[in-house]
Amino acid sequence: MRLPNMAAVLLRPGGSEIATYHFNSDNGAPVCDQVMSAVLRCNQGTETAYGADHLTAGLSTAYGEFFERESFVFPVATGTDGNGLALGAITPPYGTIVCHESSHIVTTEGGAPEFYSGGGRMTLLQGEHNKISSASLEEALRKHGIGNVHHMAASAISVTQATEAGVLYETGELSELSEIAHRAGLKVHLDGARISNALVSSGVTPAEMTWKAGVDILTFGTTKNGTMNAEAVITFDPGIARVLGFLHKRAGHLFSKMRYMSAQLLSFLDNDLWRTNALQANKNAARIEAALKRCACVEFAHPVQINELFVFLPRRLSESLRQRGFHLRPWDLGEGRDGFRLVMSYCDKAEEIQRFEDTCNEYASSSDVAD
Amino acid sequence: MRLPNMAAVLLRPGGSEIATYHFNSDNGAPVCDQVMSAVLRCNQGTETAYGADHLTAGLSTAYGEFFERESFVFPVATGTDGNGLALGAITPPYGTIVCHESSHIVTTEGGAPEFYSGGGRMTLLQGEHNKISSASLEEALRKHGIGNVHHMAASAISVTQATEAGVLYETGELSELSEIAHRAGLKVHLDGARISNALVSSGVTPAEMTWKAGVDILTFGTTKNGTMNAEAVITFDPGIARVLGFLHKRAGHLFSKMRYMSAQLLSFLDNDLWRTNALQANKNAARIEAALKRCACVEFAHPVQINELFVFLPRRLSESLRQRGFHLRPWDLGEGRDGFRLVMSYCDKAEEIQRFEDTCNEYASSSDVAD
Amino acid sequence: MRLPNMAAVLLRPGGSEIATYHFNSDNGAPVCDQVMSAVLRCNQGTETAYGADHLTAGLSTAYGEFFERESFVFPVATGTDGNGLALGAITPPYGTIVCHESSHIVTTEGGAPEFYSGGGRMTLLQGEHNKISSASLEEALRKHGIGNVHHMAASAISVTQATEAGVLYETGELSELSEIAHRAGLKVHLDGARISNALVSSGVTPAEMTWKAGVDILTFGTTKNGTMNAEAVITFDPGIARVLGFLHKRAGHLFSKMRYMSAQLLSFLDNDLWRTNALQANKNAARIEAALKRCACVEFAHPVQINELFVFLPRRLSESLRQRGFHLRPWDLGEGRDGFRLVMSYCDKAEEIQRFEDTCNEYASSSDVAD
Amino acid sequence: MRLPNMAAVLLRPGGSEIATYHFNSDNGAPVCDQVMSAVLRCNQGTETAYGADHLTAGLSTAYGEFFERESFVFPVATGTDGNGLALGAITPPYGTIVCHESSHIVTTEGGAPEFYSGGGRMTLLQGEHNKISSASLEEALRKHGIGNVHHMAASAISVTQATEAGVLYETGELSELSEIAHRAGLKVHLDGARISNALVSSGVTPAEMTWKAGVDILTFGTTKNGTMNAEAVITFDPGIARVLGFLHKRAGHLFSKMRYMSAQLLSFLDNDLWRTNALQANKNAARIEAALKRCACVEFAHPVQINELFVFLPRRLSESLRQRGFHLRPWDLGEGRDGFRLVMSYCDKAEEIQRFEDTCNEYASSSDVAD
Repeated sequence: MRLPNMAAVLLRPGGSEIATYHFNSDNGAPVCDQVMSAVLRCNQGTETAYGADHLTAGLSTAYGEFFERESFVFPVATGTDGNGLALGAITPPYGTIVCHESSHIVTTEGGAPEFYSGGGRMTLLQGEHNKISSASLEEALRKHGIGNVHHMAASAISVTQATEAGVLYETGELSELSEIAHRAGLKVHLDGARISNALVSSGVTPAEMTWKAGVDILTFGTTKNGTMNAEAVITFDPGIARVLGFLHKRAGHLFSKMRYMSAQLLSFLDNDLWRTNALQANKNAARIEAALKRCACVEFAHPVQINELFVFLPRRLSESLRQRGFHLRPWDLGEGRDGFRLVMSYCDKAEEIQRFEDTCNEYASSSDVAD
Repeated sequence: MRLPNMAAVLLRPGGSEIATYHFNSDNGAPVCDQVMSAVLRCNQGTETAYGADHLTAGLSTAYGEFFERESFVFPVATGTDGNGLALGAITPPYGTIVCHESSHIVTTEGGAPEFYSGGGRMTLLQGEHNKISSASLEEALRKHGIGNVHHMAASAISVTQATEAGVLYETGELSELSEIAHRAGLKVHLDGARISNALVSSGVTPAEMTWKAGVDILTFGTTKNGTMNAEAVITFDPGIARVLGFLHKRAGHLFSKMRYMSAQLLSFLDNDLWRTNALQANKNAARIEAALKRCACVEFAHPVQINELFVFLPRRLSESLRQRGFHLRPWDLGEGRDGFRLVMSYCDKAEEIQRFEDTCNEYASSSDVAD
Repeated sequence: MRLPNMAAVLLRPGGSEIATYHFNSDNGAPVCDQVMSAVLRCNQGTETAYGADHLTAGLSTAYGEFFERESFVFPVATGTDGNGLALGAITPPYGTIVCHESSHIVTTEGGAPEFYSGGGRMTLLQGEHNKISSASLEEALRKHGIGNVHHMAASAISVTQATEAGVLYETGELSELSEIAHRAGLKVHLDGARISNALVSSGVTPAEMTWKAGVDILTFGTTKNGTMNAEAVITFDPGIARVLGFLHKRAGHLFSKMRYMSAQLLSFLDNDLWRTNALQANKNAARIEAALKRCACVEFAHPVQINELFVFLPRRLSESLRQRGFHLRPWDLGEGRDGFRLVMSYCDKAEEIQRFEDTCNEYASSSDVAD
Repeated sequence: MRLPNMAAVLLRPGGSEIATYHFNSDNGAPVCDQVMSAVLRCNQGTETAYGADHLTAGLSTAYGEFFERESFVFPVATGTDGNGLALGAITPPYGTIVCHESSHIVTTEGGAPEFYSGGGRMTLLQGEHNKISSASLEEALRKHGIGNVHHMAASAISVTQATEAGVLYETGELSELSEIAHRAGLKVHLDGARISNALVSSGVTPAEMTWKAGVDILTFGTTKNGTMNAEAVITFDPGIARVLGFLHKRAGHLFSKMRYMSAQLLSFLDNDLWRTNALQANKNAARIEAALKRCACVEFAHPVQINELFVFLPRRLSESLRQRGFHLRPWDLGEGRDGFRLVMSYCDKAEEIQRFEDTCNEYASSSDVAD
């Protein structure tokens, strides 16, 4: 069985060409200066291991203030870790997680929800812009008959904010989903891989986007927005926190040198770094959106609300971009057309954005004449 | 239910006093300069995420040279991750792992082997200095009747090098265990949390300590010896590597910004950093051992072969040390006596070691007179 | 949370009315005389427990002759047991099972495949009459990129013969699916809950329907066709059999008084009982089908090939049937119409079938006039 | 890898000699007449499947009266099923079950507790006659620090009544264990494979031996005492019952033709059949015990309290018994001596017991002279 490029690279050197796309993912960005400084600052002297250090002791205070409520914070190193851990804490082995069929937990986390729950299942819903609707949630609960042993036990819902289409749930939408879920005995998980971008875009507070909207547990992403390898599972429920403690250790996330994780997570909140970085990334996306909107035959598959763009490009424009050095990442947006995903980051270079805009402008003006 | 200190700290601030012991653990040491420089050096520009970056591409070459054989390298962030992942790759849900009852995987990894194997079990053996013997392994295999469905399927053995008592398996001992294991169809795992210290102490090559001695898969530790949060699961078997690829992702260890993990793992080998650091830690331990051996009524529970000391101290000596600022960590060494564990590190301060020696010398000379 | 009728009945008495439908399920039939006699016959004297008895020793010979090949036979008590066990033996915790979205393993086995595989996932395909097509299987394998660690490892396909729509895969269709599966490294499972009915309907041999068509492992149903509580997981692959041995015991299916299971399974083959019973059930279905086809406005959702009928009935006919004592079981056949499922059995009473036919005939002749 | 006798028999015919021991196990006995009659009696007409039948509806009433309390009854086909299911309902994947190291769940259930709990672990205690003591339980809980995430979460204790040594916990002992367990947040499971024998031997009521002594859930055995393949998991806690409902289905124990299971379980209580049979088996054991006690050099490893005898026999006596046709089953009772286990049953033949007594008597009188 042939291993695909990615895995081959991971497994052995020279196994593949490394594809380099531009504006490919915020995961490709380096660590921002403020975070790296915090990491360096904590790199002196000995500290007690396994989270009993002074930085880690400050996590709950810092995040408690951020969320305006007592918060139980569990650092993890990846988003897949975080989602798996969070879902595992609220889903028994015989439970299901209701979510959108395009959720990252469904499509590209290698079965982490099944692994962490010990054999749970995801019940997949459809919905525009990767959002699940109250109606579809209610229908799913009706269909799977809470308490019918021939089915599994509906135990949790998972929503992504912003969704994998870069679109926001409004606070009211979240609250309504939570209410339906809670009424049926389900817990509510929020995958916040890009929660900073969602927060600055929506203007709501961290509290409003989470526990005030009924969220019981969330995966709080920071890596895509400037840190090195720090995400956090955060819950507001002491009962869930107790379970998390065991799962977190058991899955190997109780870092011996925890201080380096905590330094990142604290620095992320310091001076509103999360806001500064997210604003920049979103702003970059808005510039690219504006430039593309000036071009004929460009069509957006989803509204641009955070730092992601999902767009159909005419062949001549994508070729021009490529000639100017932009290797954009193809993305299956359906309809058999040439879809692309662009993800902007806090650290995109101004000259690159300018060059992208210029290319679009040239195309736009030539289109006026030629197309 | 009251949460213990450690967990309380992790969960919420102010929950506990942070105990600070001296010479407590090599996990308390900071990141050494060479590794931190490597991390800083790779912190520029965008890179492809999820391990398809240039640094990660170099891992297998570097470790292949280190082990003198094609090596499949899977970076993880903690030793518990690493052990769980490695054991999960060679133990089916209905399988058992034969190991010493004092193994770290048994005592303090929160059930990671059961989690990662999906329901396996550890068969516990006894043995001096936390080593398992050929005889006890053979007896266990005889007793559990390979292939008897009333029992589970003996699938793997796990040995720790050096053991949790800081003692080395000789190469011949490892080979003999592997041979017995392989003959019965079991795979061999080596927990190398302190493998650098073991290598420099024993003088054997990485190849001799692993695959030449029959090891199929190992957890290669670097965090205790100078890195930040980088361990690696390494196998020499392509079949195991294929399984590892899926488990590694599924458990959340395919870091989006993998370059920072790979930078650490590469730097660890660079200029034999692993050797330099391990030699220093072992040498520090030897100095402390020598100092203690000059004292009356001091007794070692295990021979000192790496950077760990397990020692019974007379009350007057431990008091003297405490008065001189050394809060040593009590350790249950049995017999109802005052046992202590000291772990030396690559970065122990020379003046502290000197002060420890001085305290011992004072005690020793006063003992000559008084005791 | 309110428990639904079924569970409530199971949990506590008086919790619900017991709904009684007619021609509801072949699971409602009693044990046929030949099987019960075999059970009684073996009920004397002591026997060695846990499968080491003389009847069990004969299972492989009997089924080996039936399948014309060495067969490894594992008795289980329910179809869900059987499917879970079979899938668990060929699906690792990180593996997926490709199957039709309407498969019994998906809809009404409570998550047994996830439980038995230790965290696997089912990849759901669509297809007419609950059959999966070669094209859809190939697309699924292409999409999930065998070996892409971001996904799970496609490990098995599961087909149901006859499908949940009572429709048969032709031998050529099965072979083609198996070939695609095997080429991609997947194993092939066949859920044969009604395999007897499928065999007599298709006229192919047990060998042709299973291993000659590439089936690696099957759940062989007998309970619906005249036994008490005996199904068997049967594989032709010694490697799979070894795994099965452990899973079978571990899941609790190694019956202490195995002789009573084996007596049923042996009796089922004796004098071609399986054939006699299945022919009768299929024949009953054909009579009902013929009667319904004489009625105006009756429409079949699926062709009737075994002992199951899926049919849309005009309101006036369903009312007439009800008045004549036939409470038919509503079944969601889509389109918002009045669908019903009828399942005929080896022991349907001749007078009941006759009465059903009479009711249809009356309706048909009145329709001629009135509709 | 060679498959052992038992598995080989199960897997393929002719693979082994079938060993026949006498007084080997109560699992070797046939189904008693009253139970078989009940099975035959329910074998007419159609019934609703999956437990929604009239017999199953009566289970809770019958067992509720038996236990003098509302009882939630889940039929299963084997004791391993039952124990796994019961433990799975009270042990999360990160939990431990504290039990005696010789428990059947530890030694010969193929890892069912790990399977059903989804990765739990058993914490093994020692104790005379296979009983765990309050002191050892308290020490285990102290050592594993409830709530210490480096360990797993102590979640349940499991006691066997009578123990695998055939010895009874007194009611006071059970209560004390339960109190310690409950105080620490653990649930209490009782493995009642031979609970009938324990009840008649102790003279306490079913209520006194279970919920009045703090038992939350039990595996209620009937197969060893006269039924065919019917055990029941019984809990008095509606919360546990809800979880059981899902696990019971998921693991494949919701029998389609449930009536045959329920008929056995009801018949077992009818006319105090359980008592009659257990009294007979215990009485048979007492006769054998008395006969052996008359013989010189016979030593009992455990007191004989139910229908099991664990005894060291002098070589000359075991030879005499063998010559008279009694092939007794060797049993490792330690000390390197010739240990044997004899298990008496409700249906042992009077003439066999007589012959055994005669053999003993002959040996006894000859010993008087010769030894």
